[in-house]
Amino acid sequence: NTRYRIALIPGDGIGTEVLPPACAVLDAVGERHGLTFAYDTFDWSCRRYLTDGAMMPDDGLDRIRHHDAVLLGAVGWPGVPDHVSLWGLLIPIRRQFRQYVNLRPIKVLDGVPSPLARATSEVDFVVVRENVEGEYSEIGGRLNRGFPDEMAVQEAVFTRPGVERILDYAFTTAQRRGGDVVSATKSNGIVHTMPFWDELVREAAGRFPEVAWRQEHIDALVAKVVLDPARFDVIVGSNLFGDILSDLAAAVAGSIGLAPAANLNPEREYPSMFEPVHGSAPDIAGQGIANPLGAIWSASMMLDHLGHPEAAAEVFDAFASVLATTGVRTRDLGGTASTEDFTRLILAAV
Amino acid sequence: NTRYRIALIPGDGIGTEVLPPACAVLDAVGERHGLTFAYDTFDWSCRRYLTDGAMMPDDGLDRIRHHDAVLLGAVGWPGVPDHVSLWGLLIPIRRQFRQYVNLRPIKVLDGVPSPLARATSEVDFVVVRENVEGEYSEIGGRLNRGFPDEMAVQEAVFTRPGVERILDYAFTTAQRRGGDVVSATKSNGIVHTMPFWDELVREAAGRFPEVAWRQEHIDALVAKVVLDPARFDVIVGSNLFGDILSDLAAAVAGSIGLAPAANLNPEREYPSMFEPVHGSAPDIAGQGIANPLGAIWSASMMLDHLGHPEAAAEVFDAFASVLATTGVRTRDLGGTASTEDFTRLILAAV
Ligand SMILES: CC(C)[C@H](C(=O)O)[C@@H](O)C(=O)O
Ligand SMILES: CC(C)[C@H](C(=O)O)[C@@H](O)C(=O)O
Repeated sequence: NTRYRIALIPGDGIGTEVLPPACAVLDAVGERHGLTFAYDTFDWSCRRYLTDGAMMPDDGLDRIRHHDAVLLGAVGWPGVPDHVSLWGLLIPIRRQFRQYVNLRPIKVLDGVPSPLARATSEVDFVVVRENVEGEYSEIGGRLNRGFPDEMAVQEAVFTRPGVERILDYAFTTAQRRGGDVVSATKSNGIVHTMPFWDELVREAAGRFPEVAWRQEHIDALVAKVVLDPARFDVIVGSNLFGDILSDLAAAVAGSIGLAPAANLNPEREYPSMFEPVHGSAPDIAGQGIANPLGAIWSASMMLDHLGHPEAAAEVFDAFASVLATTGVRTRDLGGTASTEDFTRLILAAV
Repeated sequence: NTRYRIALIPGDGIGTEVLPPACAVLDAVGERHGLTFAYDTFDWSCRRYLTDGAMMPDDGLDRIRHHDAVLLGAVGWPGVPDHVSLWGLLIPIRRQFRQYVNLRPIKVLDGVPSPLARATSEVDFVVVRENVEGEYSEIGGRLNRGFPDEMAVQEAVFTRPGVERILDYAFTTAQRRGGDVVSATKSNGIVHTMPFWDELVREAAGRFPEVAWRQEHIDALVAKVVLDPARFDVIVGSNLFGDILSDLAAAVAGSIGLAPAANLNPEREYPSMFEPVHGSAPDIAGQGIANPLGAIWSASMMLDHLGHPEAAAEVFDAFASVLATTGVRTRDLGGTASTEDFTRLILAAV
């Protein structure tokens, strides 16, 4: 019997409504696999910010540093600027815990319509996004604020170790999946960082001679993701390109409302964090109608990361079969089921 | 009778095959509107680079500086690195002639299938891309080349005048179209430049109180362009965001092969440049089967820029009606017509 300590950060809005279903599913599948989960819940959120002046306590990161994983609901609430909620919680966790991989699986699921006329269940790929450096560096600022010659600069920083590790992760993933790697670039233009990225891709490809790869310029690539999503297996991109591609791909698959994300520290020096992609959804919060699938799918990714791919697959198969064989849906997918009813169905399938 | 001097740069591959149709259409419509076009053709291209060592002569820009407009086919050829062909020709023209607007109309045309299940002819918007600064600045480089601590940096530079003028162009365009403005941003995250961009958007909105506007983070925005393209009228974005959005939107509209682009210097201190978005297409070059619509649509945008919106609309309506009422297509759209046959049809419709 293996025991895991999970840090739960429900956060704001529907974040607090989707984590209990995810935990229920974890407990159910865990029982069959000899896994138990001990949850510590942290009230870090915009609510906390509004009363205590900070999204989390000063020693917040220390309190979860030794957990086996973090499960996050959603952060963000009207009245709290995004940079407060993100810099106060999400981004420090990603960066201080060196979660340099942001992993987003993209699948067209039976029973979930895609906006594309010809999307099929062959659409099944992952976006591997660099998660801690690149275009989203902390370096930059403003000059001559308020004057006619005002300007703002932002430095994109790509380091050899930072790029090598995300590429190795992408090539390893493709190798495991028996697929290929597409690298998002923009080296035909002006930016100085992308030719460097391309060189490191060629080097990485040399370390994985059996994995096929190609590169695509980001502008052409977004077009191809729409025109022919089935041709992708692993797409690897910088922090910004990966950010754009992962939301685009989820939209193409029709699954933006149920998409999961993993923020991984593959070396396991620090806990990794799993979070549904949907936000706190103030418009439907408190009504018990949120779709729990983003959180449940994220929990499935957590199982995989903890070394239990079979349990992970059972969770995925359970909700995929509910979607494929029943018409029961939460409101975001056009149905009328409550979070609770829908969760019950999934628990039965697990 | 008004006479225009047009600099023609056919460039490489099918670039040389699509400009003659565009000129034929210009001549035909010009006749009816009292416009004559004098064409000067420049052989600036990868071909020239391979024989003479430069894409264009040293005084190239001076030779076209006093033309009324530039019509470009395509540049790029296998064996010539992209940075050579682009930095040697396309980018200097854009930057030295201060073509700070890259304008891309997006329409779902009758008879051209969109990859979306529910795209309708209501999809009709423009992407206004900042074309000379932002993420594609020339500032940046490499450190410790080849060593383990190697890194590359790229500076994104946003200036108040540079951002104000593109926003004013976008708001003016929305005003003229009776539509609204969506600004592409990413100010919820880390980058320092996007909050500045947002501030200038709010200022610009203050100068156009009758134009509605909103902002969307780029990751959510690409998803919405796929999920609901009909809700957009003018999307304005930085150099990189606009680059990504304009190809994505063209793909969504099914029109990547016939999309036009205008590189505008709205103040008319310098000539503006019009170019189909498709490249030189080495795989089909020399066969006489290229689709001339990207070039013809670009020529229509040129007419508009030169102050002849009615002539521009006649060209657009002519090819739109050929697409809507005949099944004749070039190979890229699934047909068998040659460039010449297809052009003849359009000339007849003009
Ligand atoms: C070829 C490349 C440099 C160019 C750009 O990024 O500007 C192209 O993508 C475009 O959109 O015109
Ligand atoms: C909210 C924002 C800072 C974040 C990001 O860009 O990383 C989000 O878009 C994501 O993809 O997780």
